[in-house]
Amino acid sequence: MTTINKNTKFLIVGLGLLGGSYARGLTEKGYYVEAITHSEKTAQYAIEHELVKKASHTVDEEMIKSADIIIFALYPTTFIDWIEEYGKLLKPGTLITDVTGVKGCVVEKIQDMLPPLVEFISAHPMAGKEVYGVENSDERIFYGANYIVVPTSRNTESGIEACKRIGEILGFGKISELSPEGHDEMIGFVSQLTHCIAVSLMTCYENERLEKYTGDSFRDLTRIANINENMWSELFLMNKEPLLRQMELFMGQFQKMHECLQNDDRQGLKDMMIMSTQRRKKFDK
Amino acid sequence: MTTINKNTKFLIVGLGLLGGSYARGLTEKGYYVEAITHSEKTAQYAIEHELVKKASHTVDEEMIKSADIIIFALYPTTFIDWIEEYGKLLKPGTLITDVTGVKGCVVEKIQDMLPPLVEFISAHPMAGKEVYGVENSDERIFYGANYIVVPTSRNTESGIEACKRIGEILGFGKISELSPEGHDEMIGFVSQLTHCIAVSLMTCYENERLEKYTGDSFRDLTRIANINENMWSELFLMNKEPLLRQMELFMGQFQKMHECLQNDDRQGLKDMMIMSTQRRKKFDK
Repeated sequence: MTTINKNTKFLIVGLGLLGGSYARGLTEKGYYVEAITHSEKTAQYAIEHELVKKASHTVDEEMIKSADIIIFALYPTTFIDWIEEYGKLLKPGTLITDVTGVKGCVVEKIQDMLPPLVEFISAHPMAGKEVYGVENSDERIFYGANYIVVPTSRNTESGIEACKRIGEILGFGKISELSPEGHDEMIGFVSQLTHCIAVSLMTCYENERLEKYTGDSFRDLTRIANINENMWSELFLMNKEPLLRQMELFMGQFQKMHECLQNDDRQGLKDMMIMSTQRRKKFDK
Repeated sequence: MTTINKNTKFLIVGLGLLGGSYARGLTEKGYYVEAITHSEKTAQYAIEHELVKKASHTVDEEMIKSADIIIFALYPTTFIDWIEEYGKLLKPGTLITDVTGVKGCVVEKIQDMLPPLVEFISAHPMAGKEVYGVENSDERIFYGANYIVVPTSRNTESGIEACKRIGEILGFGKISELSPEGHDEMIGFVSQLTHCIAVSLMTCYENERLEKYTGDSFRDLTRIANINENMWSELFLMNKEPLLRQMELFMGQFQKMHECLQNDDRQGLKDMMIMSTQRRKKFDK
């Protein structure tokens, strides 16, 4: 049974933007944190800037064995590959968690591969920036943000509680639970679909000479068009079916608007706008 | 020939969010401003809050005759109706301008209807808020924003200059010129298309239970889904052809992304993301 206290030893695997931000946040709150990350330069940076007490750019068995909680902050496929190769090093009683942005094809797969008495409780910190790397990590991206815990039937109450506690320590605003399928449906809509839209809008038109006229609307809708293509193409493909469905819902509605306009259906346009205004207002409550 | 100096008398017709903000900005800079607006309550508000020196809720001939520059801050069709009915009251030498968000079906129509020696030079202040009415007017919405002057062959150099001068006085950041057709193409893309997207996204899915999970991306993309349906349905319909074209361009690109995902075309997804990142970066320079 894992309870978090000031003697808890955390190990973070992967010091990118998120892993680095976890390291900063936990260290700042007085926890003992070590890290494994594949780049020597990143490991050095993390020690020099006191993000962690120790960092290794190789898979250090000592670190793995001495950790109470291991947080994996890797791309989904890298995470799966890592567990396949090094999962056997995890000692019984270790709790592992992650930051992965898709869950359906990750959580149970990882749980299947783990040695006995190693519990994986998945989490999705809904926070980020349009930049990456440990140099840009910042624990403040978590403050007030959403933190989703994604348990399966194989998780224990104490594992789920410890995972939520990490979210509290890091300052997340809302901590909730979803099933892997519920998570992927939600994330397909609120995050992946919005990125599809931003990328499509940014690339659909030779608009270089229009730049100087853009107002806040266009800027807001394309902020996330500045996108890490390796991470996001992987996230999209790993959430293919839910995302395809969400894209189709959006397209249907957009085509409906196109039809209203084509048919001079003023009332049809207004009805959509009234509904969108009503729905949007709830967000600002 | 119209030059603006401290003796210039401005008349604003229509005290909504934009008209009210023009009134505040010009009054603040020490100009003499009067207003005609259809609601008695709005007229009173404008006087009580010192937005203008005088305000009338009827079409006051004295105000029209004594004005050097008249700024129409009305919905496009209301503007056209107003000129049809009261245009004959405009005295030779008056310069008139506007804030209308579409130009192709407005500018030449108005110019055709005006009495001799009354010049209409059209402008589009690209600023606004998701709220309306004189109570929400605020001259600061103009600071640093785009101001587009939309001349035709019938405009004079001095009329164009005076119109630009109004933009400078109000504190706009970038003042530029476009033809009516160029304006409508631009506005179809950077403003109207973005509103179509936001409304479609906000209405495409029964997402009430997803609200609590929304992050910044979804909030950014739907901020403008809170929309004045009367104004925007009119703007869309008056810019029908350019907007339909822009919607089709966007849909084509969105469908391309849907295809890439369906075909597991990782490189295709990446290529779109790389292009969108490159293009978006230019906006932040």
